[in-house]
Amino acid sequence: MKNTSYPKILVCCDGSKYSERAITHACNLAKNDGSSISLIYVVDRSVGLDLFDRREYLMILKNYGAKVLKKARWIASQKGVKAKTVLKEGKVANEIVKYAKKGNFRLIVIGSKGLGAVSRLFLGSVSTNLAQHSLCSVLIVK
Amino acid sequence: MKNTSYPKILVCCDGSKYSERAITHACNLAKNDGSSISLIYVVDRSVGLDLFDRREYLMILKNYGAKVLKKARWIASQKGVKAKTVLKEGKVANEIVKYAKKGNFRLIVIGSKGLGAVSRLFLGSVSTNLAQHSLCSVLIVK
Repeated sequence: MKNTSYPKILVCCDGSKYSERAITHACNLAKNDGSSISLIYVVDRSVGLDLFDRREYLMILKNYGAKVLKKARWIASQKGVKAKTVLKEGKVANEIVKYAKKGNFRLIVIGSKGLGAVSRLFLGSVSTNLAQHSLCSVLIVK
Repeated sequence: MKNTSYPKILVCCDGSKYSERAITHACNLAKNDGSSISLIYVVDRSVGLDLFDRREYLMILKNYGAKVLKKARWIASQKGVKAKTVLKEGKVANEIVKYAKKGNFRLIVIGSKGLGAVSRLFLGSVSTNLAQHSLCSVLIVK
């Protein structure tokens, strides 16, 4: 008999190897627990405020996010899991907490680190932030 | 087929309802993934440094820890999981990280909050600390 603590799992994606590990862990949980999976990417609107062409910059991030989600869905499908994808814009941790609450997710899965300073992305601080503010459980994957 | 990301799970116990939820979540995972579970309580040796009879104080904490672990094992057994118990002394997060590394644990499960200031216990700050310093994945249960 399944003991499903997490009927709905939300996985945070940023295209880093850490977030790919997070997807793999989430898929293993989902397969064993019979959970559904959603993959989320948040375009960080708090960056690039000082850029001349901020609109174009955000568009580039948006396109990048769409690619990250496409690859994330492919990774999940390789693990035999059909996942939904979600692209949001705003403050990363806020958007994830909000989406998780609205969608009644019971678990957020996130990598312990992001792509690092050069790529301006984001999961290191986001994971700590989520652990503090999320209403549901958080799995930080190393 | 099982997809076991976590053959060995370490659950942090402090006797609070949050850590009891952590035990329940860990047991569900363990049953679905075929993992083994250890329950750990750490006597916080960083407290009571200014007490007149510190030795007695630590002994009281040790006895409390033994009771917490006994109850934790009972909770796990009610979920059909036979768990090992471990009592350590030292700095809480340090000891947990050290024990997890030595025992090659792949997942630490911890409650998002502890018993609160009155009881001097501990999981709120410990969970953040663990998320940063643990070598293995950390599940923070809400």
